[in-house]
Amino acid sequence: MNAILKDQPCDFVLFGAKGDLSMRKLFPALYYLYREQLLHPGTRLVGVARGEESRDEFVESIKATLVRFVPQQDFDNAVWEGVAERLHYVQVDFAQAKDFLRLAKFVDQSERVMVNYLATPPALYGDICKHLHGANALTDTTRIILEKPIGHDLESSKLINDTVSEYFNEDRIYRIDHYLGKETVQNLIALRFANNLFGAQWNQNFIDHVQITVSETVGIEGRWSYYDKVGQMRDMVQNHLLQLLCMVAMDPPSQLSADGIRDEKLKVLRALRPITQENVGKRAVRGQYTSGAVEGQACPGYHEEEGSQGASNTETFVALRASIDNWRWAGVPFYLRTGKRMPTKMSEIVIFYRNQPHYIFDPKQKAMVSNKLIIRLQPDEGIRLQVVTKEQSLDKGMALQSRALNLNFSDQEDNRRIPDAYERLLLEAMRGNQSLFVRRDEVEASWSWCDALIQAWEESHDEVKPYSAGTWGPIGSIALIERDGRSWHE
Amino acid sequence: MNAILKDQPCDFVLFGAKGDLSMRKLFPALYYLYREQLLHPGTRLVGVARGEESRDEFVESIKATLVRFVPQQDFDNAVWEGVAERLHYVQVDFAQAKDFLRLAKFVDQSERVMVNYLATPPALYGDICKHLHGANALTDTTRIILEKPIGHDLESSKLINDTVSEYFNEDRIYRIDHYLGKETVQNLIALRFANNLFGAQWNQNFIDHVQITVSETVGIEGRWSYYDKVGQMRDMVQNHLLQLLCMVAMDPPSQLSADGIRDEKLKVLRALRPITQENVGKRAVRGQYTSGAVEGQACPGYHEEEGSQGASNTETFVALRASIDNWRWAGVPFYLRTGKRMPTKMSEIVIFYRNQPHYIFDPKQKAMVSNKLIIRLQPDEGIRLQVVTKEQSLDKGMALQSRALNLNFSDQEDNRRIPDAYERLLLEAMRGNQSLFVRRDEVEASWSWCDALIQAWEESHDEVKPYSAGTWGPIGSIALIERDGRSWHE
Repeated sequence: MNAILKDQPCDFVLFGAKGDLSMRKLFPALYYLYREQLLHPGTRLVGVARGEESRDEFVESIKATLVRFVPQQDFDNAVWEGVAERLHYVQVDFAQAKDFLRLAKFVDQSERVMVNYLATPPALYGDICKHLHGANALTDTTRIILEKPIGHDLESSKLINDTVSEYFNEDRIYRIDHYLGKETVQNLIALRFANNLFGAQWNQNFIDHVQITVSETVGIEGRWSYYDKVGQMRDMVQNHLLQLLCMVAMDPPSQLSADGIRDEKLKVLRALRPITQENVGKRAVRGQYTSGAVEGQACPGYHEEEGSQGASNTETFVALRASIDNWRWAGVPFYLRTGKRMPTKMSEIVIFYRNQPHYIFDPKQKAMVSNKLIIRLQPDEGIRLQVVTKEQSLDKGMALQSRALNLNFSDQEDNRRIPDAYERLLLEAMRGNQSLFVRRDEVEASWSWCDALIQAWEESHDEVKPYSAGTWGPIGSIALIERDGRSWHE
Repeated sequence: MNAILKDQPCDFVLFGAKGDLSMRKLFPALYYLYREQLLHPGTRLVGVARGEESRDEFVESIKATLVRFVPQQDFDNAVWEGVAERLHYVQVDFAQAKDFLRLAKFVDQSERVMVNYLATPPALYGDICKHLHGANALTDTTRIILEKPIGHDLESSKLINDTVSEYFNEDRIYRIDHYLGKETVQNLIALRFANNLFGAQWNQNFIDHVQITVSETVGIEGRWSYYDKVGQMRDMVQNHLLQLLCMVAMDPPSQLSADGIRDEKLKVLRALRPITQENVGKRAVRGQYTSGAVEGQACPGYHEEEGSQGASNTETFVALRASIDNWRWAGVPFYLRTGKRMPTKMSEIVIFYRNQPHYIFDPKQKAMVSNKLIIRLQPDEGIRLQVVTKEQSLDKGMALQSRALNLNFSDQEDNRRIPDAYERLLLEAMRGNQSLFVRRDEVEASWSWCDALIQAWEESHDEVKPYSAGTWGPIGSIALIERDGRSWHE
């Protein structure tokens, strides 16, 4: 994470090159990496998909994609020409072993590192690995990048990981959680470990509680039948929210190595206190949106969404009160919430500090929360520190006022753009740096905790609580935190 | 300081009503207090001076003053009419006992509290007190406000205080250090004692050192013969800089009472380690400006200033390394500097935090100071917290960057004006709140420390070091701090 690894020439092989993720995120990310001169001159970008297509046709389709998904002011024809030169296409039906021979022949691992990106449904991971192996395409440097979901519970994730592990050592496997590629999430490393002002107080002596919110305004986006089998817990909490929790809660690693960081994250996941059937009613709230309005637009309820198959107990909202049973965080609750059809799209981490031990100001103002550190992932990436100041006024004595110290990361003198998470992640995978990727034991520890919670819900016959689209979830999620004498931020 | 004391009707008696301070600062402050409806309806403003003048003439002269010194957008005729109604004039020759009878007769202490403001040379304090007493004008509620300088050393300050004390108890004496009236200085109270994030780390475990800078661009402003007897040490360090040091360094008082605060400030002054003849060369630097340019304007040297009487060893610049021998600050130097003809007019306090104990980032960046809290008194009152963040860049790994979290106090939604220090101080004196005024023992502890330092300079025959107008003082002031491996801020 610390050292800048040397760029290596790669054959970056993208399985599912015509899919939605590739179009929207991966090709634009590759475009920017080329523009910033961060692709090694010897690197080739190899699209792999089932359709029959000439190289020219493929190149044209990628151009159309970039024109659509790269902002107009950033699209430059000269840059595009450079990207186009590196693009190649190999037609492969993932179920057909023989098709992989064609790919194996194309890839040149004496000169380049083969980096396979599986932007496909996880059900295909096994076949792809097996056939790559069968075609003799795997060397001991070949890497594989896996998209989520890695299973839908501990058991199925083990199955996937076992399969992939037959062909790839753990140090060649790059599991993506794109939240880890966000600039602000990486900034947590700097913020926590390069600032003693924060670092020295990052524990239960000084911090009262932590809140992590990831809210979306979208609903199911036509994926009803898929989403209904998954739900917000598996879709968002198991990966993104728990990864954010790990980045906030981990002990400082003694070195900034990939395993240094991941060892510490793992310790957090393993210290998460299980939520059980006995306390699930007080520790976790599931919600499902009904019709309402988001940002002034009327929205259907979950059951009225396109593709709905009727009655369902799948949650589109989760609020949790997590406890970390270790020395740093004993007694400090982590409140997590995430949902669809919320009032705004927003991701933030809020550190609430304890108030000062003795209070000498106007007792009427005693309830004012003194210090909050707000780490904003989106929108407006940045940090904000809430402090208490004297109200500027002649006639109010030492009346206090809460005000904010602000730093917007986008306020750079050079108007520098904040790179997208996928740019960072593709670059690091091509450089062979695993710091920002999730290790198998992390995935499994996370599933293990989530499975127990999901089971507790099932065993207690917990019904999802309705909430109107455009609100912050069911009333129960307010009660979850108010019960402790605290409130959700904002 | 905390409670808002009840407004009382006062006879606010201003000795030296036609002097420079009254014109520039005190009448404008009274104008704003009236505008903000902070003068009790029964309060009268009584100008006292030697000249023969009718009330109408006096009122007209004050109007001319306000038109000149209140910004045009704030001068309102209706407000002025209200101020004018309260204005009175009593002609008094301060040396003539009988003149005070006229004043005593005018003032009505059965209905009002008499608050005397002595905006006169300190040499007159004795006479004024004596004659007020002689005219039977003093009751046990009568207050007196004294402007600096209270003496030019411990002995002479004792003499003045002894004289005043013959007629006024300490709880009726309000010694002004107008720095204490500045909003940002009072904000230190809120910042330190209402923010555990700062309060819990406000000690030698977490703070590396503190810098206090008060720089002026002006020179001697026609006061050469006065200033030459005084110098920057007595004119600025003994009062303003040491008061700022006290506000930064004092232990938290258990209550926000006037004596609660002043007891703690006194303890700091008494814990200041004396600078002696042995170490004065390393701990304190005196400078005197030579010709140069400030803000693009050519300036004469100190010796070429109007009124100069030739060779002089008076300092126009002081830099100090002060040590506070107590539990909170052992080993934490306080670097103070103040001077005339500096590059900019600026007052600020900078808290330098210690860096984190272990360093895991690029060793090349290890020297970067992690955290500084910059408390700006002027210009642009506000606070700024310097933090280390990840540089937003794809190709630099975890490269660090120092960035600022900002809070400008003047950025208020309601565009509220920051009150001038004198508004605050006059109001508090009329309300009977001594928190922002300097107690006798503070003045004496401060003189005692300064006298020792001045004596050390004299005994070691220290010559002032020249510095060009428009620079940050003599080279020796750089050496003073660089010797400790540190640098002046900015």
